[in-house]
Amino acid sequence: MTERPCLIIDGLQYAKWSERIFREMHDGGVSAVHVTVSYWEDFREAVERLIEWNRRFETHGELIMPGRTAEDVRRAQAQGKTAIIFGAQNCSPIEDDIGLIQVVHDLGLRFMQLSYNNQSLLATGCYEREDSGITRMGREAIREMNRVGLVIDMSHSAARSTLEAIELSQRPIAITHANPHDWHAALRNKSPDVLRALGESGGMLGFSLYPHHLKDGSDCTLRSFCEMAARTADLMGVERLGIGSDLCQDQPNSVVEWMRNGTWTKSLDYGEGSAGQAGFPPQQEWFRGNLDFGAVAQGLRDVGFSEGDVRKIMGENWLDFFERSFGAAAA
Amino acid sequence: MTERPCLIIDGLQYAKWSERIFREMHDGGVSAVHVTVSYWEDFREAVERLIEWNRRFETHGELIMPGRTAEDVRRAQAQGKTAIIFGAQNCSPIEDDIGLIQVVHDLGLRFMQLSYNNQSLLATGCYEREDSGITRMGREAIREMNRVGLVIDMSHSAARSTLEAIELSQRPIAITHANPHDWHAALRNKSPDVLRALGESGGMLGFSLYPHHLKDGSDCTLRSFCEMAARTADLMGVERLGIGSDLCQDQPNSVVEWMRNGTWTKSLDYGEGSAGQAGFPPQQEWFRGNLDFGAVAQGLRDVGFSEGDVRKIMGENWLDFFERSFGAAAA
Repeated sequence: MTERPCLIIDGLQYAKWSERIFREMHDGGVSAVHVTVSYWEDFREAVERLIEWNRRFETHGELIMPGRTAEDVRRAQAQGKTAIIFGAQNCSPIEDDIGLIQVVHDLGLRFMQLSYNNQSLLATGCYEREDSGITRMGREAIREMNRVGLVIDMSHSAARSTLEAIELSQRPIAITHANPHDWHAALRNKSPDVLRALGESGGMLGFSLYPHHLKDGSDCTLRSFCEMAARTADLMGVERLGIGSDLCQDQPNSVVEWMRNGTWTKSLDYGEGSAGQAGFPPQQEWFRGNLDFGAVAQGLRDVGFSEGDVRKIMGENWLDFFERSFGAAAA
Repeated sequence: MTERPCLIIDGLQYAKWSERIFREMHDGGVSAVHVTVSYWEDFREAVERLIEWNRRFETHGELIMPGRTAEDVRRAQAQGKTAIIFGAQNCSPIEDDIGLIQVVHDLGLRFMQLSYNNQSLLATGCYEREDSGITRMGREAIREMNRVGLVIDMSHSAARSTLEAIELSQRPIAITHANPHDWHAALRNKSPDVLRALGESGGMLGFSLYPHHLKDGSDCTLRSFCEMAARTADLMGVERLGIGSDLCQDQPNSVVEWMRNGTWTKSLDYGEGSAGQAGFPPQQEWFRGNLDFGAVAQGLRDVGFSEGDVRKIMGENWLDFFERSFGAAAA
């Protein structure tokens, strides 16, 4: 037990952004958050999301700042601010143009998923029946993402595509928000094979705190979550682990509907939900928002993680990964 | 006379870019060039031009590199490369969206003209009959350009608009490529009032070497050009002067036609040319390309500029201006 403040980095959030949320991040001691700027947005639409963020940086500059490097995160921590790191949950912002990879990196994107649930131009999503692996353009995109320092995120991709991405990428990749499939058998959660390969390649897993990714959903206990984390540390090594809460605070249910359906279907797809539970599920009582990372840290201590390991999982591993990942590849 | 190499910076070029041109820049000792990425291109089209440049940086990395800061220019000089600084000759890349100003700056643009010959959303161009000055959006754009460090360039704007831009801008502006109107009465050249105000505000004039901006056109003598430079130094101060050659090497005449007509007319506008001389005019014999900056420097010495002043005009003034202009405004 220590009173020394712990670096807290969240590997994924998509809130309805507001001063209330930014103040909660500040009060919760969150020094960096990877935020989603695109699910289905094409390049021009993603640019509009970035413009909205640039306005927020001006309006709420005492609480948030752009996060483009590990150094930005350290500066945010020192100043008591939250560094906002942009990412896309799909490859839609690069459309069919490999040149847009450097462009979105120039605009601050540091993570991009190769596919979101469905087949994309680059890879297969986790809800497709067939997983045909990384496509021709996918191989090119991986090489280009490696070159410029845009992290490959396979959170919503299917297993073969993910294993191939790990294999093809010259730099470690991330699964920013998911859990082990053998703890909770959601299609979004990851098999031991995938997690082992991810760990061996120096990649990162961010543990999701989204109820649909948790054993017993909204009733999941903190102890069950932390025991799962301990087993995953045995599988992957504690240095490969972080948090990716998948918090979607203050969002109306129309947003989860849009995440699932975008513009690709005229039917309603319920994704991880169901017709009976179509909206955002209620958060488990021990993690409702940015004030609750301390409770997660305590839960990790309680299942036997050392203080040093807790600090790694809560933020230091992500910071080390940012350091290795966000810059251009050595020539 | 000295053998010590002189820093050479060119304040405007729009060549048909090729290894041949880049090698000529290298052989001519040109350490930085402000290149045009947009005349009429909207945001998405300008992004495609940037993507083409990103490819050139990969392909010709031994000759050229991105120029986003004064420090990049110093590094280019030290490495014998040419730093390429992006600029737009019109405000078309920001469309009607003030948020795109920061976006294009993030993508590397460091200069943007508020209007190109015609009325724009921001200002009046030099070929309009009426010059109504800086528009409502123009005032907002100037403030935002000041904030992010995107230089206001009024080369193709009309006089009142230019004087108002100088007055409204909190940071010095540039006229990257033009000459004094009282030396050669082209609509693109600038009145003593404009040049005096530009000088007093700490702005920069890049002397154009484009025949239509020269007294006697393609027959202009180096001596006449350099005497004009000396008189302009008396008017504005030698620290306010640089070169902006407006070189358009290897471009077909279809390009000058497109510069003049864009998509705004179905008629043919001849701009500075005429029906009888519709294409690019022949370059004066003493300045045909990037190998000839040394001749200009010698011409300046020959009309009495000191070695120190020659070095200022050939590049040091631009470098100092870049240092003051390309970063975000102090908070």
